[in-house]
Amino acid sequence: MDIRACLFDVFGTVVDWRTSVSREFAAFAREKGITGIDPVEFAIEWRKLYHPSMEEVRSGRRPFTILDVLHRESLMKLLGRYRIAGLSDADIDHLNRAWHRLDPWPDVVEGLERLKSKFIIAPCSNGNIALMVDMAKRAGLPWDCILGAETARAYKPMPEAYLASCRQLGLAPANVLMVAAHNPDLRAAKKNGLCTAFVVRPKEHGAGQTSDLAPEADAVDVAARDFVDLAAKLGA
Amino acid sequence: MDIRACLFDVFGTVVDWRTSVSREFAAFAREKGITGIDPVEFAIEWRKLYHPSMEEVRSGRRPFTILDVLHRESLMKLLGRYRIAGLSDADIDHLNRAWHRLDPWPDVVEGLERLKSKFIIAPCSNGNIALMVDMAKRAGLPWDCILGAETARAYKPMPEAYLASCRQLGLAPANVLMVAAHNPDLRAAKKNGLCTAFVVRPKEHGAGQTSDLAPEADAVDVAARDFVDLAAKLGA
Repeated sequence: MDIRACLFDVFGTVVDWRTSVSREFAAFAREKGITGIDPVEFAIEWRKLYHPSMEEVRSGRRPFTILDVLHRESLMKLLGRYRIAGLSDADIDHLNRAWHRLDPWPDVVEGLERLKSKFIIAPCSNGNIALMVDMAKRAGLPWDCILGAETARAYKPMPEAYLASCRQLGLAPANVLMVAAHNPDLRAAKKNGLCTAFVVRPKEHGAGQTSDLAPEADAVDVAARDFVDLAAKLGA
Repeated sequence: MDIRACLFDVFGTVVDWRTSVSREFAAFAREKGITGIDPVEFAIEWRKLYHPSMEEVRSGRRPFTILDVLHRESLMKLLGRYRIAGLSDADIDHLNRAWHRLDPWPDVVEGLERLKSKFIIAPCSNGNIALMVDMAKRAGLPWDCILGAETARAYKPMPEAYLASCRQLGLAPANVLMVAAHNPDLRAAKKNGLCTAFVVRPKEHGAGQTSDLAPEADAVDVAARDFVDLAAKLGA
């Protein structure tokens, strides 16, 4: 492998969306006097609408639309389902930007700093640019640039999401390493010629997680325990 | 002014293209045994082809094409004009990437570090993403993300180059400050609703520079001696 850049999946791989979104919802509910809703369940239900919302774009039924907009539409559905009423647009925008305020796993900042000393590092996430920038400034993620769905105008796992990111770096896919905690993401990257690294995140879905607990041989070139281990394995 | 992000013109404002490109050409000429060409003149002649090459895209006569490609086409013209022959594609690519290896003015890194502590900072340059990333890694420019022509698919001073950059940050133009050493760039930004800051670069075009030696009142909200002075004036 002759790696020049590392691209990262973000939700689940870099940040713990489940804990962070439920913390954000719990604080919001407290402030607004909303009771009787389990914040973890709310986060999980919100996330369940993520793939269906992007599928509208992937299928071509809808022109490319950034994730902040899709997240907000999903949130409106949830607010209806949970019968939460009387919120202002500003309240809803603030809650929607919970996804801008996600905490990284504890190894991430140290691992990224080390990887950055040797490689270009960038997210290749379905999150939009503003979401990634706000998250990075809050969490101290030292990206060299923000790539992914919005710059590619395509959602993973569509080939263009990976290929546009390589092209925008001026690199061949073989010189780019896609890092993710999800085998399907890595399988799609590999099919498009990128190298792949699996980092296990056994608590992304909570204590009872059953998926993505190990790398799948046909999808993965490098396997690591966390980002610090990945840096060590790549000599950074 | 309620500024949340600072966008920067790059060629001339952040980096000294004239000195850097001539240094790169001089080293290249020495290695290849090319004699009799003034490196500063070569840099200036290359830069003279910059606006005409983008004008093909701005006018709609040509689909959006990144600056690395336009720079290379201009370089091929110059090589013909100066009767430089026998170079490999790899040699020409290396010389073309001289624009990826430009040095910042001495106040830039300190000024950007300070501005980054208070604002989102990003280039809004006509340079493409790979060019900006390579330059930033070499020079230590701590951008939060890379915006500009390639993410907007429009060259400044077209309105979309400024407006897409604001939109991609999720900000209204009034909350974004465009920083440049060129009054026309700032006038275009201001016309599109951005705030503007002029930083004087009296040596961009060498000792005899006659243009952009002072801010023009109709284009500029803030004027600064350099990036450190700008940070101080913005309370960063």
